[in-house]
Amino acid sequence: MNKVTNQNRWLLAGGLSLLAITGLVSAQDAPTAASATAAAAEATFTVNNLWLLISAFLVFIMHLGFSTLESGLTQKKNCVNILFKNVFIISTGVLTYYIWGFNAHYPGASPFSVEDGGTVDWNGIFALGSMAAPGEGDQTSAYGDYTYWTDFIFQAMFAATAATIVSGAVAERIKLGKFMIFALLLVGIAYPLAGSWHWGTGILAKFGFYDFAGSTVVHAFGGFAALACCILLGARKGKYTESGIKPILGHSMPLAAIGVFLLWFGWYGFNGGSVLNADPAAVSLVFVTTTLSACSGAVAAMIVSKVVLKKPDLSMALNGILAGLVGITAGPDVIPPTLSILVGAISGVIVVFSILFFDKIKIDDPVGAISVHGICGIWGTLAVALFGGGAATIVGQLVGIVMVCAFAFVFSFVVFLILKIVGGVRVSEEEEAEGLDVAEHGAPAYGVS
Amino acid sequence: MNKVTNQNRWLLAGGLSLLAITGLVSAQDAPTAASATAAAAEATFTVNNLWLLISAFLVFIMHLGFSTLESGLTQKKNCVNILFKNVFIISTGVLTYYIWGFNAHYPGASPFSVEDGGTVDWNGIFALGSMAAPGEGDQTSAYGDYTYWTDFIFQAMFAATAATIVSGAVAERIKLGKFMIFALLLVGIAYPLAGSWHWGTGILAKFGFYDFAGSTVVHAFGGFAALACCILLGARKGKYTESGIKPILGHSMPLAAIGVFLLWFGWYGFNGGSVLNADPAAVSLVFVTTTLSACSGAVAAMIVSKVVLKKPDLSMALNGILAGLVGITAGPDVIPPTLSILVGAISGVIVVFSILFFDKIKIDDPVGAISVHGICGIWGTLAVALFGGGAATIVGQLVGIVMVCAFAFVFSFVVFLILKIVGGVRVSEEEEAEGLDVAEHGAPAYGVS
Amino acid sequence: MNKVTNQNRWLLAGGLSLLAITGLVSAQDAPTAASATAAAAEATFTVNNLWLLISAFLVFIMHLGFSTLESGLTQKKNCVNILFKNVFIISTGVLTYYIWGFNAHYPGASPFSVEDGGTVDWNGIFALGSMAAPGEGDQTSAYGDYTYWTDFIFQAMFAATAATIVSGAVAERIKLGKFMIFALLLVGIAYPLAGSWHWGTGILAKFGFYDFAGSTVVHAFGGFAALACCILLGARKGKYTESGIKPILGHSMPLAAIGVFLLWFGWYGFNGGSVLNADPAAVSLVFVTTTLSACSGAVAAMIVSKVVLKKPDLSMALNGILAGLVGITAGPDVIPPTLSILVGAISGVIVVFSILFFDKIKIDDPVGAISVHGICGIWGTLAVALFGGGAATIVGQLVGIVMVCAFAFVFSFVVFLILKIVGGVRVSEEEEAEGLDVAEHGAPAYGVS
Repeated sequence: MNKVTNQNRWLLAGGLSLLAITGLVSAQDAPTAASATAAAAEATFTVNNLWLLISAFLVFIMHLGFSTLESGLTQKKNCVNILFKNVFIISTGVLTYYIWGFNAHYPGASPFSVEDGGTVDWNGIFALGSMAAPGEGDQTSAYGDYTYWTDFIFQAMFAATAATIVSGAVAERIKLGKFMIFALLLVGIAYPLAGSWHWGTGILAKFGFYDFAGSTVVHAFGGFAALACCILLGARKGKYTESGIKPILGHSMPLAAIGVFLLWFGWYGFNGGSVLNADPAAVSLVFVTTTLSACSGAVAAMIVSKVVLKKPDLSMALNGILAGLVGITAGPDVIPPTLSILVGAISGVIVVFSILFFDKIKIDDPVGAISVHGICGIWGTLAVALFGGGAATIVGQLVGIVMVCAFAFVFSFVVFLILKIVGGVRVSEEEEAEGLDVAEHGAPAYGVS
Repeated sequence: MNKVTNQNRWLLAGGLSLLAITGLVSAQDAPTAASATAAAAEATFTVNNLWLLISAFLVFIMHLGFSTLESGLTQKKNCVNILFKNVFIISTGVLTYYIWGFNAHYPGASPFSVEDGGTVDWNGIFALGSMAAPGEGDQTSAYGDYTYWTDFIFQAMFAATAATIVSGAVAERIKLGKFMIFALLLVGIAYPLAGSWHWGTGILAKFGFYDFAGSTVVHAFGGFAALACCILLGARKGKYTESGIKPILGHSMPLAAIGVFLLWFGWYGFNGGSVLNADPAAVSLVFVTTTLSACSGAVAAMIVSKVVLKKPDLSMALNGILAGLVGITAGPDVIPPTLSILVGAISGVIVVFSILFFDKIKIDDPVGAISVHGICGIWGTLAVALFGGGAATIVGQLVGIVMVCAFAFVFSFVVFLILKIVGGVRVSEEEEAEGLDVAEHGAPAYGVS
Repeated sequence: MNKVTNQNRWLLAGGLSLLAITGLVSAQDAPTAASATAAAAEATFTVNNLWLLISAFLVFIMHLGFSTLESGLTQKKNCVNILFKNVFIISTGVLTYYIWGFNAHYPGASPFSVEDGGTVDWNGIFALGSMAAPGEGDQTSAYGDYTYWTDFIFQAMFAATAATIVSGAVAERIKLGKFMIFALLLVGIAYPLAGSWHWGTGILAKFGFYDFAGSTVVHAFGGFAALACCILLGARKGKYTESGIKPILGHSMPLAAIGVFLLWFGWYGFNGGSVLNADPAAVSLVFVTTTLSACSGAVAAMIVSKVVLKKPDLSMALNGILAGLVGITAGPDVIPPTLSILVGAISGVIVVFSILFFDKIKIDDPVGAISVHGICGIWGTLAVALFGGGAATIVGQLVGIVMVCAFAFVFSFVVFLILKIVGGVRVSEEEEAEGLDVAEHGAPAYGVS
């Protein structure tokens, strides 16, 4: 083997694998331009598909980010409850998306679709069944850059995000069972429906609505669902008193920081994967705008918190990062890097004042989810019209924002109101005081010994 | 530079790198079908190799997952000890695999191999030495999709896993030194030997044994090694009393949750990388079945714990995720997605009852490793025969399960018994009460100020 | 669709995407060797670029690693302060690098460059502005393997590292505001300047200085900047007393362990990405040498700590991992695997004695950053000359080490001295006793309830 040069081995190994893949010619035949073209196309397909799969596991780890962020910013006595909810959300979110959401998500396939007035896409459902074995026909998706299953797993990881946003806002006082029912309905029905307006050839496309990776259809959607729930749920006991607002401290800032850094990490898949292939120019630009916006969001929130709160506030800095990430998510592919710094900076300013505002009107959101995802999601969607170079119009963006946020709010308000009427959505004062870990799960998060 | 169009630059850059790589033609010559074919093959080789390297670092991070899971589910006073053991395992595991295991792992190369009756593969050992510089001949592995070093690093990250499984089961009462010796022997000798039966042209292949990424040869192997150790080691003081089983709470559920999410994250490399190339259809299917099984494992464990334990138990939900992941690991490439949900759900049911069973027969396993890896590993291996579409037979699977698990149990029992006879394997009652951190390491895990 | 075979779909999908990309021929024309060559070159470019982007987010997560490591090894009362500093460093580090550092970094582009005597590279600055939209000409970097933006984001993630190294060493007693100013100057001015001597056609190349991924220009640079600051700052109160050295325990070893594992994880991008493409032989060799050195560093530090400190010390084992990683960083591409074990082992021995030495001379470095990054960075740079197979000479390496370390030390000493004269760099004794979290940020890291 030592006699063979490396170069020849490249050709040998390469040629063999090429032949193995294309199966066009036997080992005897000489390669042709056609076989070479097919081999090159297959290599491109493979790297595009691989990037989507990598993006899928990056978006997956965001669920750990949400878990640690939400548990870190809340009290020790409710930590198990939050972790349990997050495990429930990712698990049931993917399963419901498999059974139902994936078919419902795309116009023409959606039983709720405005397009086709609600006929179930049996082909789609059949496809799921027929997709059992690898190598089958319809494993290359409509997009041509990745397989059917890659499309599914990337989208499924997104799906559960909306419910996760809500779980932070309603933390420390919601009944576990009621939250589970609400999360299932939100992820299983409302999210795919709103998504179906946007993605593919959805109705919002007709208005020129542009939302690259989901500032509105994912984040603002989740933020306004959370707002509806927080209004109906009420504030945690002892937060708003005659003597003013009593901040309820989170129990672990390291957990919160781990959460934000993991969310930032995962966002490279959330935004970068939304390019839907590995195009070097597009993906690298998205990485840069996403990073710059996160950084300027943090710096802006640090400065504003120092000026307004008279101290450099870590939780505001962390929310500033998330604000910048949510803000750029609608247009990381069309907003120039220098302007993405502006988008993030404005997000970082907005999030601090928004959090203070919701506290002033006594809407209790322990982690600031409504401000980070809801308000900054709206800002980011508008920013595309302002800085995106004609990719979208203010009117088109507003139409999408209003439709999606109003729907998320109304759907959540109605469903959560029904759940409230039927047995209540809030734990008892005793359970809230004791903490949900012992009350709902019979075990504390931290052992004593 | 602005005059050059992007397309031409693609061709220029591409053409140059192509020529640089193949070295077939000078910059003057026009590209030929042969040179184009070589370039395409090289691109395919590069993306396949890259996916294996990515999988290697994903499997690496599983060792952090095990570290935080095991320390989270055990007591505060033994946290340093568990972290130290995990650092020891990954460090020595990779080194012993480099010096010895990699050569021993593959039939024909194994001094223990059933095939060639035990002649040391000096070529293999020489190869390690000769592989110093890049660009050398034997850097493309036998598989043709990745380099020799990629093969090594991916396999090396797997190797240490078996010992890590044991470390959780024997936590809180084992002598550090004795565990170190046992781990070295398990990873250095027993694991490569059992692996050599399975991988490549191992004897188990003759029985049609199918275990894609190691439900049996990695997880059940580790689980049954752990069982042997737990039997010889005995339960932690105060766990089993006349008045019944006294649960010993873990000291940090957030740490445990971080561990499980990181293990799930790393499993995309563990199973996805076991495809051994970046084939879009195969890898995406493995991602989907692995994810669905983890999700249904969690949901099943949540339901069963609610019904049996009368509460939604977080640690059971987390073990349900791991059970689903272990369960699908034998056949993520051949079990259809819809059936992978069933595989995971059954795993989630099994793990809860298995954990309760081992507690009933007073085998103390602080983290449930025997149930998660041992019992669910067996189930997953059988599941391939049931749902894998003829990829394997019940008989063939049983032969592999019995051979591997019996060997792991007997090897571990004998080695650990010898260690027990020679100076004991268990710390004193005083040390156990005080905690291993101060007793063995002279420092607590958590400072007071 | 079921009638079409998978193979044909490959060709169809591939062919279409190929045509879409190259745009050379219309769908009617048959593929030519030229178009096939272009398609293959484009696939190679895409995978090379993708690996650099993956490396960028791996290096990004190292900032979470530093955050948890530094906070874990310090006291509970200073945890918020450390996390805040790390958020500030990554955020401002990337922004300053965007506005300024990236242009300053490469000789010919640097206003400080020894080469061109300090003319600002307006083209470079202009380029940043002109790089707004994807698909533009100059998005393929000079290297030809990735885009301009990929180059930027990968380098930007590196840039903030130097300041992060300092933040650990000065923890628990430095004024937040003064640290922020220092970090901005170090990352914005000193780091790009020193880097400009080395990278590209920098002056150090003339001396045959070889530092693959930055043992000297990143790690020793940061370590010696930290040394200067620690000398001027003085030790924490109560560390060095008449009755000897009073160790100040870290508040969470799990946080420290999470940090080290994440740093190891990210190092695959730090070293692996420094190959600057996805060349299978080179990247896989770098993965192997980096891993082996980390492992042997851990084992060596475990043994030495057991022998010298009479106990198996976890923090030393963790620093041994980092020492091995820093040690191999100068030559992971040229040092043979077997010798990389030696490089790591020596690093692991050095780090323990170095930490003890700095304690003996009363230079207080809470996390051991000076020893891990400074001393082991020097050792690793020399190791290339010893084991790198003629890639570098001892003299050339020494020239680079002396220039970079001396510059880092003097720059930091002068800047920090000025900051000390102007209002002081150290918090009051009361604030230090109370902890920086409450004193500087008005909030503790851990809530009580």
